[in-house]
Amino acid sequence: MEAGSSQLAEAPADHNLEVGEEGRDPESNALHKPLLKRNTTLSSNPLALVGAKVSHIESLDYEINENDLFKHDWRSRSKVQVLQYIFWKWTLAFLVGLSTGLIATLINLAVENIAGYKILAVVHFIENERYLTGLVYFTGANLLLTLFASVLCVCFAPTAAGPGIPEIKAYLNGVDTPNMFGVTTLVVKIFGSIGAVSAGLDLGKEGPLVHIGSCIASLLGQGGPDNYRLKWRWLRYFNNDRDRRDIITCGASSGVCAAFRSPVGGVLFALEEVATWWRSALLWRTFFSTAVVVVILRTFIEICNSGKCGLFGKGGLIMFDVSDVVVTYHVMDVIPITIIGILGGILGSLYNYLLHKVLVVYNLINQKGRIHKLLLALTVSIFTSVCLYGLPFLAKCQPCDPSVQEICPTNSRSGNFKQFNCPDGHYNDLATLLFTTNDDAVRNIFSSNALKEFQPASLLIFFGLYCILGLFTFGIAVPSGLFLPIILMGSAYGRLLGIAMGSYTKIDQGLYAVLGAASLMAGSMRMTVSLCVIFLELTNNLLLLPITMIVLLISKTVGDSFNPSIYEIILDLKGLPFLDANPEPWMRNLTVAELADAKPPVVTLCAVEKVSRIVEVLENTTHNGFPVVDEGVVPLMGLATGATELHGLILRAHLVQVLKKKWFLPEKRRTEEWEVREKFDWVELAERDGTIEEVAVTRNEMEMYVDLHPLTNTTPYTVVESMSVAKAMVLFRQVGLRHMLILPKYQAAGVPPVVGILTRQDLRAHNILLAFPHLQGSKNREKKHKISPPSSANEKLSDCSG
Amino acid sequence: MEAGSSQLAEAPADHNLEVGEEGRDPESNALHKPLLKRNTTLSSNPLALVGAKVSHIESLDYEINENDLFKHDWRSRSKVQVLQYIFWKWTLAFLVGLSTGLIATLINLAVENIAGYKILAVVHFIENERYLTGLVYFTGANLLLTLFASVLCVCFAPTAAGPGIPEIKAYLNGVDTPNMFGVTTLVVKIFGSIGAVSAGLDLGKEGPLVHIGSCIASLLGQGGPDNYRLKWRWLRYFNNDRDRRDIITCGASSGVCAAFRSPVGGVLFALEEVATWWRSALLWRTFFSTAVVVVILRTFIEICNSGKCGLFGKGGLIMFDVSDVVVTYHVMDVIPITIIGILGGILGSLYNYLLHKVLVVYNLINQKGRIHKLLLALTVSIFTSVCLYGLPFLAKCQPCDPSVQEICPTNSRSGNFKQFNCPDGHYNDLATLLFTTNDDAVRNIFSSNALKEFQPASLLIFFGLYCILGLFTFGIAVPSGLFLPIILMGSAYGRLLGIAMGSYTKIDQGLYAVLGAASLMAGSMRMTVSLCVIFLELTNNLLLLPITMIVLLISKTVGDSFNPSIYEIILDLKGLPFLDANPEPWMRNLTVAELADAKPPVVTLCAVEKVSRIVEVLENTTHNGFPVVDEGVVPLMGLATGATELHGLILRAHLVQVLKKKWFLPEKRRTEEWEVREKFDWVELAERDGTIEEVAVTRNEMEMYVDLHPLTNTTPYTVVESMSVAKAMVLFRQVGLRHMLILPKYQAAGVPPVVGILTRQDLRAHNILLAFPHLQGSKNREKKHKISPPSSANEKLSDCSG
Repeated sequence: MEAGSSQLAEAPADHNLEVGEEGRDPESNALHKPLLKRNTTLSSNPLALVGAKVSHIESLDYEINENDLFKHDWRSRSKVQVLQYIFWKWTLAFLVGLSTGLIATLINLAVENIAGYKILAVVHFIENERYLTGLVYFTGANLLLTLFASVLCVCFAPTAAGPGIPEIKAYLNGVDTPNMFGVTTLVVKIFGSIGAVSAGLDLGKEGPLVHIGSCIASLLGQGGPDNYRLKWRWLRYFNNDRDRRDIITCGASSGVCAAFRSPVGGVLFALEEVATWWRSALLWRTFFSTAVVVVILRTFIEICNSGKCGLFGKGGLIMFDVSDVVVTYHVMDVIPITIIGILGGILGSLYNYLLHKVLVVYNLINQKGRIHKLLLALTVSIFTSVCLYGLPFLAKCQPCDPSVQEICPTNSRSGNFKQFNCPDGHYNDLATLLFTTNDDAVRNIFSSNALKEFQPASLLIFFGLYCILGLFTFGIAVPSGLFLPIILMGSAYGRLLGIAMGSYTKIDQGLYAVLGAASLMAGSMRMTVSLCVIFLELTNNLLLLPITMIVLLISKTVGDSFNPSIYEIILDLKGLPFLDANPEPWMRNLTVAELADAKPPVVTLCAVEKVSRIVEVLENTTHNGFPVVDEGVVPLMGLATGATELHGLILRAHLVQVLKKKWFLPEKRRTEEWEVREKFDWVELAERDGTIEEVAVTRNEMEMYVDLHPLTNTTPYTVVESMSVAKAMVLFRQVGLRHMLILPKYQAAGVPPVVGILTRQDLRAHNILLAFPHLQGSKNREKKHKISPPSSANEKLSDCSG
Repeated sequence: MEAGSSQLAEAPADHNLEVGEEGRDPESNALHKPLLKRNTTLSSNPLALVGAKVSHIESLDYEINENDLFKHDWRSRSKVQVLQYIFWKWTLAFLVGLSTGLIATLINLAVENIAGYKILAVVHFIENERYLTGLVYFTGANLLLTLFASVLCVCFAPTAAGPGIPEIKAYLNGVDTPNMFGVTTLVVKIFGSIGAVSAGLDLGKEGPLVHIGSCIASLLGQGGPDNYRLKWRWLRYFNNDRDRRDIITCGASSGVCAAFRSPVGGVLFALEEVATWWRSALLWRTFFSTAVVVVILRTFIEICNSGKCGLFGKGGLIMFDVSDVVVTYHVMDVIPITIIGILGGILGSLYNYLLHKVLVVYNLINQKGRIHKLLLALTVSIFTSVCLYGLPFLAKCQPCDPSVQEICPTNSRSGNFKQFNCPDGHYNDLATLLFTTNDDAVRNIFSSNALKEFQPASLLIFFGLYCILGLFTFGIAVPSGLFLPIILMGSAYGRLLGIAMGSYTKIDQGLYAVLGAASLMAGSMRMTVSLCVIFLELTNNLLLLPITMIVLLISKTVGDSFNPSIYEIILDLKGLPFLDANPEPWMRNLTVAELADAKPPVVTLCAVEKVSRIVEVLENTTHNGFPVVDEGVVPLMGLATGATELHGLILRAHLVQVLKKKWFLPEKRRTEEWEVREKFDWVELAERDGTIEEVAVTRNEMEMYVDLHPLTNTTPYTVVESMSVAKAMVLFRQVGLRHMLILPKYQAAGVPPVVGILTRQDLRAHNILLAFPHLQGSKNREKKHKISPPSSANEKLSDCSG
């Protein structure tokens, strides 16, 4: 190559290579500073907030790494092994469902009993008019439970705080967040959730259950906790990102199913809200998992119905079976339904907006340290306890309606007509809603048998309280779900609207509450079909379906015109590089070559490379993939001067393995297939562990060579440099890539066979706009059409003959 | 170029170019015969059976054609236009739902009335013991109705025969079948369906309704019938394959929803069974359509409940509301449930197997001509009528059970206890099942209130009859659905099993019938979640869900181990090039370069091309896309000898437009953007009409030039020649391509910038195996690793400087 100044030749002499540990893209490929044709460079940030801690995140690799070893392994797999694989895949799906169902039952049992005995004790104080003792007892018990949950979260597994759904969503989109699916996280999530829900905080166990399901799935898929994994060979076949993605999808569905006892809803939730990639086969497998969950839940409910489970009661599920309610509605009911839908959309997006602000403030507090986190959680707990205990005293006592068949007033743990501080024959309607577990509160407010059970004033207080609690509880360091707070808020204004409608409508007030809850969920979380099915399975009344559908559609439309869904807001807040389904319109105005230009030049390796060069590249970059180029011997062509060949892409992890195993050659030559098979194994290469820091290479070894041919993925996905970023992004997301190579559109001697490499971070709209600020709002601007040159072709060319 | 013998220079001299009209791939790119390194070539067959007629099929183009015109059009679209587009998108979804709902109601009304009056008349004859007159009347009426449906189908729209679901599935996979969505097809389908269902044939209106929904969607999307389309500009924005795909998905969902009154089931059916590509946004839009359908259906049912619709009765829908049935089951019920599941799987796959054989025979008959088609249909009709009328005489009359509240015996059109030929106080249980519409038969067999209503012998006769009818009715030339025949068969053996279980189980016999129907559907159609939801929405009883799920899972598993689903069998039989989600395992052993080698060399065009060459290429090939290469002027490189550049891909349709509009240049030069914008328009270019035969070019014009730059899609998706076919297929299907270019992995002077082009036909397993027979069963064979050369590089290179 006449140009001479190849990167490879220069690199060893170039000692000012150090780039700060942060602010570099680990997926991408940069050694030198770019040639700064623009002021800005495409800097990508590999950091994100994982459990209130800023962590380094990586992309997952869903692409099949078709190197020689894989091809050999695949060819040598026998039919029996393939059947084993399929059998084990289904066994895993079964085990995921089974474990999720059992753990959900355990949580329900624990919560119902702990909260139940707590409430019964306080009721006893109130009956004896020892109100202050009751308050102290109530607040104290809640404080202890919150402390338990919070200490677990803060000290052992910060990633267990919150619902975990955004992280799962990001994982299934291809973003690996550290410590999300570990055994500690799982244990803390289970017990933290029991503590937090029993403490009466305004949060649900639904979100955490989704996370629990995913953790179980991940642990089962990898054969146990990180350090004590079963190393069975047939289990290790699952040790790749694709199979883990599938099993975690099953886990998430099972979690939703366990939370709502809604098998179809669970599958749809995973499909609509959580998963990025989806196949028909997966639909079937997740469905199997949720079927198992639902059988487990039913079995336990039947067992507990005979009273063997303490205060288990109705099974701790929000099941408000309204199948016996005859739903009659007419054309004119469209008006209240539309109002609920619009209200839900407005309130939902308002909630998203405010919650975002609160979370930003909470993040500042939480980052100050563990004590701050704990204090925040305890403050919220005290406030909640005082309100829950104190506010019912504001409500007027209502006389019991003798026509209602339920016991009234009641002093038991659950029930619709709580006596609280009222005289006999009277009940306190606000206590019915506040002085109970959240699940029971939902059931009570949905109850459709009593027309005048709740006073508007009580509902208003309830709504106001839960608006405040819903905003300020979510961000504290305990496992918390978003579903229940939203359902509580929504059902309150739904029922209020029902009361306001009065005799105008024939729809029951309880159904208004259900519709209100649905509308607020659609307004905040923006789900449609899955939510509809979940509500269908909860209410067990198909006649509700058409009105639920209309409400959901309106709410989502209204909400979407204001802001994105709450999960997207949280994803954005955490800085997780989630790739959206649709490219931004301005991405059509940009080619991948321009994108590559804004990045440091690509670092390529030769197919037979010197050890010193590999060590240097690994030490000085954080990239996870390197294109491998070869000296080209073009068949059937006489002249081959300057011919080069793109051999493929090699992963950092595999390079580290080569160095660790010291698979070095004294001379520069190609190896035979048996040589590499002696040393490496496909299943082993799927492991991601090992860093360059753990590797020690002697000075002699540095001068040796490595044949990268057999370890290189020879079939990377590629785009031509003239490809628009929009279309490149579609390819990247649809196929589920980690690296995408950019090829030159020119064919000539001296043109490098690869001109760039793109990663998830490079394709994020946010990052691109930082580097190309003029694109913002360029939609209506005419852009000059120039043929964009491949950036500094010669400088990027490795000299592999050297 | 030293090689000299470029295609371009040779082509005009080469007059033996004619290739037979058939047997060539219209998507692909071949002028010359290949260099026959192998005995076999990758021949792809662009023909398929569309409505019993072999037709030429084309691929759809879901890729965004990013040429200069598109870019300009896109940039110049104002915000208002974008909002208009979104508004119109939703309006279309609404209109699709509205029309489908109305037409479904029309069909139901017509069927219930025609069949109802027919049955009442026959009942009158039977009451008077004029059995033979009854038979003649019954057979005659059915024959006339069948004749009506069949003549419509045979003479006016052969594509309206059958369910249409396989073709819709293929369309949404990217295969355009001619005349599938025309206005004639729609009308024939509607009236043919009314005729065929009223004629008492063993077929349903469910499949046809899906087709009707899709037709409506397609027609609305393109603004009316082919020849009288509205040419509104904002409607023409929908004139592309992507938007049509979306709207047809909405139509298919609406159809299912209208058939089963199952909005969520309709969405899921489209998702699981019909659609290939799916987005969350689409989920929401289809959901909206089905919501509209369900509101329409409900409204009409309410109107008709007051008796204004003649014999409309229960609305012609199979709604077997079992929500009042208390479902109790225990662990031991797992045994009968498993038996039903296994039976369903075995019978379902057996049905698929036999139906396949019957369809092969029927195809032979149908291909003989119109008279044969008609005679076949009429024969089936007579056989059906005689059986339906005659078999009930074999059944013993049963005394009425006074404890049952229903009228017994009844002589009305519907009802559970038909008197038929029995004395007063007795009923004929077989007549209850046979002497009624299919919908009512389903409702009757599902009925759960009467334990001993049906005798095993009657059910056996029923089952046997419908097995025969189910096999021999489906292939005749009338619009026919598969759902109902399968439900009828399945429910019969389900109920039989329920009777056999006797007192062992607590599950009602009617529920056994439901489970039997579900199991056979899963065993034959292999749907899971969608079927589950459809049954949920039909039965309106959530307690059934867990057992339905288990039955479906077992049936599908058992069925899958025998043969593919019935739709896949039909697709295969029709020769529609459906691309499966998963590549075959042996595809990893083959590179795209090897595939390209087996094809004739690629035909490329120069970016500024002579008219004569374009005409010649268009006349001598049937390919729909041609790579455009340019003389390369590599920026920043001093030397550029032999440099070439891949400019992009141009579509046949656009070349034809250029010739039609005579956009020729007297000299060889690049045009300015305004020049092309003066002549062409993006919306116009989206049209697919026009063939080369319609174009007349004078001898003078032949010597002129065309600048293809502005019309070329500059961002085609590409793969490197070393890519495995498996991964190339994943890209092709995931992104929804029509053409995929193959780039060389070498970089050197003289290497062509594109070495091949792949289309849907090239990636079909069937076609590949014909060309590479050794791959079949090569899974466990070791294959030698040789670097596959780019095939005959020089010969493929166009000389664009000439």
